[in-house]
Amino acid sequence: MQMEKHSEIFNEIDEIVHSKSLALIGDSPNGGLYWLKSIVESGFEGAIYPVNPGVESALGLKFYKSLLEVPGDVDLVIVRVPAAVVAEVVKESVMKNAKGVVVFSSGFSENNEEGAELEKKLVQAVSGTRTRIIGPNCMGIYCPESKLSFRPDISMDPGPVGFISQSGGHAIHFAIVGKTIGLRYSKVFSYGNACDLDSSDFLGYLAEDEKTKVIGMYIEGIKNGERLICALKKATEKKPVIVWKGGRSEAGARAAASHTGSLSGSAKIWDSVFKQTGVVAVKGLDELLDTISVFVFCPPTTSENMGLVSISGGSSVSNTDFCIEEGLSVPELSYETKERLNDFVQKMGTSIKNPLDLAGSYNYPGVLENVLGILGEDQNIGSVMFEVQVHYPSLIEKLLEAPVSNIIYGGMVEGCKKIRDKSNKPVLIILPRTSYEEAFIAVRNLFVSAGFPVFPNIASAAKALHNAIKYFKRKRE
Amino acid sequence: MQMEKHSEIFNEIDEIVHSKSLALIGDSPNGGLYWLKSIVESGFEGAIYPVNPGVESALGLKFYKSLLEVPGDVDLVIVRVPAAVVAEVVKESVMKNAKGVVVFSSGFSENNEEGAELEKKLVQAVSGTRTRIIGPNCMGIYCPESKLSFRPDISMDPGPVGFISQSGGHAIHFAIVGKTIGLRYSKVFSYGNACDLDSSDFLGYLAEDEKTKVIGMYIEGIKNGERLICALKKATEKKPVIVWKGGRSEAGARAAASHTGSLSGSAKIWDSVFKQTGVVAVKGLDELLDTISVFVFCPPTTSENMGLVSISGGSSVSNTDFCIEEGLSVPELSYETKERLNDFVQKMGTSIKNPLDLAGSYNYPGVLENVLGILGEDQNIGSVMFEVQVHYPSLIEKLLEAPVSNIIYGGMVEGCKKIRDKSNKPVLIILPRTSYEEAFIAVRNLFVSAGFPVFPNIASAAKALHNAIKYFKRKRE
Repeated sequence: MQMEKHSEIFNEIDEIVHSKSLALIGDSPNGGLYWLKSIVESGFEGAIYPVNPGVESALGLKFYKSLLEVPGDVDLVIVRVPAAVVAEVVKESVMKNAKGVVVFSSGFSENNEEGAELEKKLVQAVSGTRTRIIGPNCMGIYCPESKLSFRPDISMDPGPVGFISQSGGHAIHFAIVGKTIGLRYSKVFSYGNACDLDSSDFLGYLAEDEKTKVIGMYIEGIKNGERLICALKKATEKKPVIVWKGGRSEAGARAAASHTGSLSGSAKIWDSVFKQTGVVAVKGLDELLDTISVFVFCPPTTSENMGLVSISGGSSVSNTDFCIEEGLSVPELSYETKERLNDFVQKMGTSIKNPLDLAGSYNYPGVLENVLGILGEDQNIGSVMFEVQVHYPSLIEKLLEAPVSNIIYGGMVEGCKKIRDKSNKPVLIILPRTSYEEAFIAVRNLFVSAGFPVFPNIASAAKALHNAIKYFKRKRE
Repeated sequence: MQMEKHSEIFNEIDEIVHSKSLALIGDSPNGGLYWLKSIVESGFEGAIYPVNPGVESALGLKFYKSLLEVPGDVDLVIVRVPAAVVAEVVKESVMKNAKGVVVFSSGFSENNEEGAELEKKLVQAVSGTRTRIIGPNCMGIYCPESKLSFRPDISMDPGPVGFISQSGGHAIHFAIVGKTIGLRYSKVFSYGNACDLDSSDFLGYLAEDEKTKVIGMYIEGIKNGERLICALKKATEKKPVIVWKGGRSEAGARAAASHTGSLSGSAKIWDSVFKQTGVVAVKGLDELLDTISVFVFCPPTTSENMGLVSISGGSSVSNTDFCIEEGLSVPELSYETKERLNDFVQKMGTSIKNPLDLAGSYNYPGVLENVLGILGEDQNIGSVMFEVQVHYPSLIEKLLEAPVSNIIYGGMVEGCKKIRDKSNKPVLIILPRTSYEEAFIAVRNLFVSAGFPVFPNIASAAKALHNAIKYFKRKRE
């Protein structure tokens, strides 16, 4: 395999991401040592230098009075001091040959004119040097591969999802929720006001990064539209880029201005940028996570033909509505499929068709294992959406006073694997809310660990799958 | 207070709902004694007569060989025998002077021509008698007040919500999920094919029922449009009626035909019926539950002005987008409110405005308790949407190694109570997914038990509240 020659900006960011030493400026026990704990608990293997003149030591680590006191060079500096003194720390970082400075502190251009002036000083401090700034007003870097994290409670297993977020809160939320639905990350960047490195830089980096297979983005605004359009075009040629634009509304744009000092631009302009560049545009964190799940856990498809399976006739009707309204189809099954399904579905009150309402058969061992597999083999069906209603197996278990639910769920997973592995088609698990909360979590984890995407309702699954279908159709053109 | 004279149909259904004796036909230990356990565990206080010639006794109850063997009259008969023999049981029910027969069995008009013939025989069997049929192909009645239930695992605490569902699955799901978000029920009817009593009858009943304050409906189709329109008009004059129409799409309508034998009618016709009658039309179970939550837990409002509170700037931006896109407003706060909030919000990096991004202040004891109350008093604000991100207090607790999260959550609830009880304005709790699953459940239950509606994301909260606002605006006209 030929190695691709990487761009200069790729190398710069990659060095920061793979820092071998790290200084934390301003973390204190009063704040719970947020940053120090995040770094230590993520298992960072390089040198860690906490800096705070008021602290002797914590977590077994010596604290330094200032960054300049730290012995030798420091690759990465994370800064949590008041805005007014950040520029000073950045200058010291330059003196320590830092590759990157993450400025967590806020109070810059997002705040007022005075803050904007302070922000300019940060840029001046690194101008003409090899030191790059991430932020200010951001969470910085989360990279399981290099054991670098901005929270002490997110997964350190690496995975294929890259994420770029102007908002630190959304970056955290994304990492936290993604953990529960099986998403694992290559690199996550929260970059806030983007005074130096910006969304285009990180996008270019993730596009070139081999570990990253899918890129998610939350953008509020940008300073250089041309650059971003160019970066989006390049990135979408290589991998799916799913973008959530915050500040679509005028009031939201005003909020964005005071959040990250961003000029949002009109929703129309953004829509046309997304169309032009082949970006998958989404609205909201849930749709972002759901859409990424489809790209990560499902084989590519351009078929809009859904096979729907549930336990109830009511669900069958309303799930069909939601698929159709999303622009998908719920076609007839082939004669052969119906004949084959006939052997497994109880006759009383349910007929064999798409959507498939299994009613009582749903809970019979052996039924779903076979029914799902047969449905997956139908040439009329492109993907299967399977609704798991936890309160049926849980109740059966209670009524029969026997541990039957694990057998039922095991059969479900086996059936889904047949669709995915034998027929190479997407299977989407719909897992609606229920009062059986423990069982809900256990069942979700069962499907997640078997590598299936899980959605809270049919509408979100249909939307996410359709996003992916449109992407692959465009690719094919 | 003057007692209203009730309609004849009200009295008929009310007698069925308050049955004093009950026979269960065809329940067997093979099926886990589903019906018998549902009735026994719901605490039904009248006589219970299980009928199955193959069973001697179960759960300490004697089984009868046939319905006619049961001593004396039986108010309510629940039938679970193959479709072909249901008519016979209905005839016997008439002989036992039953007020109502719930036909759980399916295999009637929803199935094929033969089934439609069988269904006609049921109608003939009660024609000219005082016995009424609910079903076939349904779950029947769930009424905590009379300790009658169609599941052994749903709440038996009575409440203000009435629900009418053509689908048994949706009726169950509604009851199950409603339990977790604090909804409690007066009467729930699942009526399936509606061969005798139909949606208009149940709607008329719930409209007259004093215990029912809000009515939810899931309809797939109807036989008599005029009657339903009339019933909807009458009902909406008395209380909010929230309707979810299943089978909106053509494919969904086909599914409905084979689910409850219903003719769905075009989506356009239904839309105009809903407009004409003042019904609150919703799409999907989640929107139905969310909208009912607003009617149950919030004071009436016609103001579209939202006050938004969250911990993160990113959430502030995107929550604003969702409110605006739903047609709500996020106005400026009054000068006075800003001044008052100033005392409680940390200065670094957050400015005081709407949406209010509390950042670090979010976790400070005493902050939310006061901030929420002050926001509620602002005359520019009609409702408050408060986003609770469980992973912040949970992490603070972990970092500080002190049980601070209960103090933080306690302050949140106190603040929300001030808005509701002092300012008499709606407060909607946004509780997004998180990996802190135990804490999530505990926090949801905390808000639910304090009487607040809880939503999975801002979009669903905004949609549900706007549904209610539009209803109250129409009422005011």
